Formats: sequence, C-alpha cells, structure tokens
Amino acid sequence: MTEPFVTELEDALRAVVGATHVLVDGDLRAPYETDWTRRFTGRARCVVRPGDTGEVAAVVRACAAAGAPIVVQGGNTGLVGAGVPAGGEVLVSLARLDRVEPVDAVEAQVTVDAGVTLERLQGHARAAGLDFGVDLAARSAATVGGMVATNAGGIRVLRYGSMRAQVAGLEAVLADGTVLARLGGLAKDNTGYDLTQLLAGSEGTLAVVTRVRLRLVPLLPARAVALVAVAGTDGALDLLAAARELPALSAAEVFYPDGLDLVRSYARLPAPFGEPAGAYVVLECAARTDPTDGVLEILAGCDAVVDATVASDRAGLDRLWSYREAHTEAIGAAGVPTKLDVCVPLGELSAFVAELPGAVAAVAPAARAIVFGHLNEGNLHVNVLDAGERAEEVTDAVLRLVAAHRGSISSEHGVGRAKAPWLPLSRTPQEIEAMRRIKAALDPAGLLNPGVLLPA
Amino acid sequence: MTEPFVTELEDALRAVVGATHVLVDGDLRAPYETDWTRRFTGRARCVVRPGDTGEVAAVVRACAAAGAPIVVQGGNTGLVGAGVPAGGEVLVSLARLDRVEPVDAVEAQVTVDAGVTLERLQGHARAAGLDFGVDLAARSAATVGGMVATNAGGIRVLRYGSMRAQVAGLEAVLADGTVLARLGGLAKDNTGYDLTQLLAGSEGTLAVVTRVRLRLVPLLPARAVALVAVAGTDGALDLLAAARELPALSAAEVFYPDGLDLVRSYARLPAPFGEPAGAYVVLECAARTDPTDGVLEILAGCDAVVDATVASDRAGLDRLWSYREAHTEAIGAAGVPTKLDVCVPLGELSAFVAELPGAVAAVAPAARAIVFGHLNEGNLHVNVLDAGERAEEVTDAVLRLVAAHRGSISSEHGVGRAKAPWLPLSRTPQEIEAMRRIKAALDPAGLLNPGVLLPA
Repeated sequence: MTEPFVTELEDALRAVVGATHVLVDGDLRAPYETDWTRRFTGRARCVVRPGDTGEVAAVVRACAAAGAPIVVQGGNTGLVGAGVPAGGEVLVSLARLDRVEPVDAVEAQVTVDAGVTLERLQGHARAAGLDFGVDLAARSAATVGGMVATNAGGIRVLRYGSMRAQVAGLEAVLADGTVLARLGGLAKDNTGYDLTQLLAGSEGTLAVVTRVRLRLVPLLPARAVALVAVAGTDGALDLLAAARELPALSAAEVFYPDGLDLVRSYARLPAPFGEPAGAYVVLECAARTDPTDGVLEILAGCDAVVDATVASDRAGLDRLWSYREAHTEAIGAAGVPTKLDVCVPLGELSAFVAELPGAVAAVAPAARAIVFGHLNEGNLHVNVLDAGERAEEVTDAVLRLVAAHRGSISSEHGVGRAKAPWLPLSRTPQEIEAMRRIKAALDPAGLLNPGVLLPA
Repeated sequence: MTEPFVTELEDALRAVVGATHVLVDGDLRAPYETDWTRRFTGRARCVVRPGDTGEVAAVVRACAAAGAPIVVQGGNTGLVGAGVPAGGEVLVSLARLDRVEPVDAVEAQVTVDAGVTLERLQGHARAAGLDFGVDLAARSAATVGGMVATNAGGIRVLRYGSMRAQVAGLEAVLADGTVLARLGGLAKDNTGYDLTQLLAGSEGTLAVVTRVRLRLVPLLPARAVALVAVAGTDGALDLLAAARELPALSAAEVFYPDGLDLVRSYARLPAPFGEPAGAYVVLECAARTDPTDGVLEILAGCDAVVDATVASDRAGLDRLWSYREAHTEAIGAAGVPTKLDVCVPLGELSAFVAELPGAVAAVAPAARAIVFGHLNEGNLHVNVLDAGERAEEVTDAVLRLVAAHRGSISSEHGVGRAKAPWLPLSRTPQEIEAMRRIKAALDPAGLLNPGVLLPA
C-alpha cells in the first residue's frame, strides 16, 4: 500500500537513489521501523537507501530543503532506540554503502564504508594477516558506521579501547549536505579540532558517517581462557588487579550465580565447578604463542581464586566462554528484560552490586536484576526481569544508584531515545548546554536524529 | 612603569586575583611576552595570574564583559606562537594553578591542575609506583594544561599515544565564564559528545583548560637502547617493521648524517660507528625486566642493520640517547632555524626525505634542512638553517611538499599563529568551515586566543 503523504520530497529522493531504493510501502518499511530489541519502534515517512556518499549528501540536501527530519540506520542492532524513527522521519539506511578498500599493511589501517558489517571487516582484516580491535556479539549485522556513531565497546576494550580508539579518520555528511572527509589516517596530526572524535559517539545527531579509516591490530592466533570462581565482587577485582600484569590479557568478564543458573538451564550446561561461588570471572589472553603459562601463574599466585578451569583449545575456549556469552539469550528467554548498560569506578563496584537488588526491589518488589559485564571498565549490563509495568521506575532507580556511585548511565550502548531523559544524571547542565550549542552550530534546523541523545 | 591604558578592566581583574597578580608594568610582563623560541613576541595589555578555577572563570567573565581578548599561557614552551599575544590581549597565565591530587592507584589515574609541570607530574606518578605516558624535552617547564591544549607528542607516542590519549577528563572555562567539569575519569562513558577530546588540541581557542584527569601507565624500570646504523630511510623503515614485534618497544627515532655531524661537533661526541651510514635509528624498549635480549634478537634478524650498539645501563642509555637528544641544541647553536614539525604516511617517508633538500634549495639556495624525528608516526622535525630572509618561502615550500605527500603540516606542535596561514594545506575548506562554526558556537565574540589555529 502506498502511503497517502507521498510528495515532492519522495520524488526528489527517487531522482537521487532510484525508485527501487525509496521504500514508502508499509511492508517494505517495516523491517527498518522496529529495532533488534523490539522495544523501540516508530513509523518512517519513507526509507531511503543511498548507494554512496554522493547520494547520501544529495538525500540529506533534499531533506534539508524540505525541512524533513532524518533518522540514520546502520545494522539496526542498537539497544537505545537511536536508529528507528520517533515518527514521521525519513529513515536513511546506509546498508548499501558496503565497499571495503584494500588493507594498508604498512600503516595497519583500512578504509571501509559505513554499511560494512563488523564480521566482514574482521574477515577482511584477517585475510591480510591483521585483526580489528573491537568485537561484539552483533558482529554479523552491526555496521561500522553505527559502531562509530555509538562508540561501541565489547569485550576487547580492556586491550584496544572502544570504537573511537580504532578510528583514524572518517568521512561524514553534515545536515546541510556538506561532506567532511578526513581519511588520510595519519598517526599524528595536530591541525585543528578533532572533528573525527567529536562525531564518534554523537549518535547521528551531528552528521551521517559514510566512510571510516580504521586502525587494525595484530592477528593473535593463540588464546587461553580461564573461568574462575571467586567469593564475590571484591575477589573479582583482586583477580583483575593480578591479571592486569599479563601483557596478553584481552578480556576480563564477570557474572554472578543467578545469571549462571539462567544460562545453565537455557543452554543445558553443566555446573562449571563442584561448589557454587559468589561470582565468576572469565579471563582471556591472546598472543602469538600460547599464553596459557602466564594465566596459570597468575591464578596460582592470586589468593582470590577459589577454583578455576583453563582451556586453550577451540572447543574448550568456546565451552568456557559460553557461560558468559549465553547470558543475553538466556535472559531474553526468561522474559523481556529492562536492559541497562552502566559503569561505576572500580572502587564503587562492590557497593553498587550489593545495593542493586534493594534499589530494584524498592520500586518493583517482584523484579530481579541479572548482572554481568566487562570487569576492567566497571561496565555492568543490568538486565531487570519481571519488572512488569514498573520498567520506567526500575530504570530510574538503577540509573540514580549509578549516579550516586559516580558512574555513567550509559557505558557502551549510548544514550539514544531510551536514556535521553536521564542524561542530566551523567552530564552537568553546563555540559548539556555546550552540547546543544555544538548541535545548533552543525545542525541548526535540528534535522538529524531529533530526540536522540539530547533531552527534549 | 605603569602603562597608560590601565582601566576599569584592570581594576576588576585586581578585585578577582589581587593586585600583585595583575602585571601591567612592562618589565614584569616581559617574560610572558616572548616565547621559548624567541621567534614569537607580542605585547600584552596586562598579565593576570589567577590562583584557581573560580578565579579563572571570574577573569574570563571580566574580560568578556569588557570585550577584551585573551591569550592563555602555560609554561610558555610552545613552538608555534599560540601562547604569546599578537598585541593587546589580556594574557592569562595558569602557572599558579599547581595543585596535584593523590594518585588513584586502583584506576591508575590522577587529577592535576593545568599549571603543573610535566616533570612534577612524572615525579608524582613515580612516587606512587606508576608513570606518565608522555615525555618530552621541555618537561621542566611545559605544563599539563598547555600539553592538553596542544595535544603534545614526544618520543613515547609509539607506545602510549599523544597527550589526548592520556586525558580521561578535564575541567575548562568557556569564553563566557561557564565552567565545564568532567573529572570522573570513567574508563567507558557513552553519554553524549566527547567535549574532552574536542577541547584537547584546540589550542586555547574554545576554552581555558584548568584541571585534567590523566591516565597513568606502569612504571617500567628496565630499559634497553640500540643505536643502529642503516643505509637510509628505507632501511630505517624495515628496522621499524621488525622492531614493532617487540611488545616492550617504547621509542623509535631517526636522524641523518648531517644532524649527527652537528651533534658531534656541538656535544663533542665520538663517532658512534667506524663507518658513516645513510641514516641512524634509536630504538628503546622499556619493561619490568631487562628487555635487552629481545632487542638483540630483532637486530640479529633484520637485514637492514648495518651496524649497531646496545646499552642497558644508565650511562650507556644516556650516551646513546644523546646522539638524538642533542639535535635541538646543536641546531640552535648553529643558527636560528626555521622549525617545522610535519608528518607523512610511512609509505611516503623516503620520497619526502629525498625531495626535501631540492625543495628547500629551490627557494633558498644557501639553506640546509636538518631532519630528525619520530619514525613510527612518520613525524619529522625539519629544521632549516641559513634560510636568511627566505624563512617564509622555505616554510611554504616544505609544507607544500608535505601536503603533496599526503602529510600533515603540524604533527605534534600545533598550528598556533605560525602555521595558521597554511592550515588549508591540511584541512579541507569544509572542515575549516565546520571548525569555525564550532568556534562561533562556544566563543561567539572570538575572545579566546584570536588569530591562533584558524586562519584570519
């Protein structure tokens, strides 16, 4: 069914990208209008699928001329509702921007289009004997452009930093159609404001990222993983402090008994240890040669270790990682969780974990909070099940607890529409005002991702 | 002698900081009005020395109310004229902002005032068993605030990145006196625009940095240094590629025979090798335990090595480093150089080095270009001696050659007043326009460091 509000703008967009790439029919729009969480959904005026940067710029110019707001979408794997319409925006999908340039082995860099998936980037880098520093579960669908826009994290941040640390330059389209291009990838360059880092993490509110120059890292074929039982969060932090001595350390993840129970029942996994423990840590080392000895040495020397199991073969690595990696699916199978992604300073982590159940119970007595995450950065994914109609109150209570412990209300997922009302818990009024001034300077009409990131 | 134009503004400034910290007398102003290079000098309306962030904010508000432009100064060790007045500005010295907070060993971070010197920061970190990731020759005078404002580099960028990579957060005063504070130092935080990274490297044109939250790195007591003779730039790059396999690699510096001759004659050093070579590389490794074996292994396996000498004791380290470190002084003793700080992609480095003498000779036949720098980032310090009255033409010729090789006209010194006219060689008109819009958004009256960074 063709929508009734097809107008001159749609004709202009068809002239840019071709009629087949302007989707106005509801059935064709639908896959773009609801995100991966199924929590965020909104109707697009139409979906436009430009094929290159020039087309993106022309699409943005056409929308600007019509005063039509835009929502930008990559792989639609975001978790905070930043990539789906609030209602009535032109949805610009970057899926067709999918070119990869040859890997520059001398500089250990590569330039790829925004619509290239993480999985394809990883394969491309590995074929050249290198690797990409960020990895996350949505790799088959998440796109490079979206990962830059949200400054995505994942399990390797401990070693290589977040997505912004991988970005050596980028190309982006401003709200008036101007193309900013900075793809030279120079290792050091002190010629003015770092627009690349300003756009990274700006969630599509300042510009549409169309191409990215990315740093690559060495390909490290030898891995060792330890699953370690500890008495609780303090023990996990003691183990982390010891493990940080390992130059090969590439991940340090934490989870708890209630999450383990859900995972074991969902994935039919055996108990990892004879006795239950207060908390569990997954340590991974990656190197050119087998890093197992270093891991064993750390475990032997750390008083916090209650029990541990170590693997360095493919099957063993997968088996130990599955206790951590199955959390998201296991929680999803148990209900529709209220998902929060927070971090606190490491010195506050134990207190935060201890106080969380009480804070949730105070507003939703039947709810339970399953917690797991990236130990090194104090980054916990708080998944609250059985909150019922109290999801908003739970969100508010958890985020206020985070703020009381000097934490961030969004550690790696971004603010999006989901967290925008709580942004003042993490940024001062002065910072928000400065952000608004920058937004107004680059997008005076407020056409790019309205309602995302900055509170209304 | 009191200047004739003392006015209400000076009285207002005295009310903020006290009469002894408003310097209007020419003799008292003089040390602030000429920079370290002695190339840049300009008269200040007065020098104001606030004692804390609140006083900085009040000083900025007073200047804003009077419409008086401001120049911000740290240790006055900048090399591009960004910290001295063009003429008539209020010079705000941050030297009295000199507090250091205790080192946070759990987070490996510390918060210090902008006026703290690098040397003091290093001592403070080392006393806590940690170290700071950036080091440079001006450490006794260069201040943390200035180093953030210019995104300073140095010899450890290879391992830890430039100054911006060390900055976990900062506090700064905007042009209207608003204080932005973000000193929590969270390892991961995706709540909106990265104002910290926008201000880092903005050379005082967007805000006055008053405090900084800095990441610290492990203290690595064991060092090994190799001075290596190679046939030329290509050989240096082959050696670099091999040395990058060393996890302990912390520096890779390059210099050439003409620089070595100046250094030997200035510092009365013996020839490092029996035969002269086409180029010389200094490699340094730093680790918890003696890294010498790894260095020897790399040298033995690299065909590019013509000759080499290795040291791991204090005297030997100093001796080998002196061939590289004495360059700046030796060149200064030979004349007043035109100093340029550029980088090119590594694939362009050999061609750039080969073409440089011809490009200089074409505009200044009597001049000679001495080159040395940070090999890993393709960052060369080009020092042109005997350019006479052709310094401007030499600058233009070298920077155009850099641009032709896809390089940057300022790799680690910044743009300042010295390079502002050439900014379009490194940034597109679209980028410069975006920078101007951001500048206008945060400093609409253009009061902060006018004439610095953005071309007039």
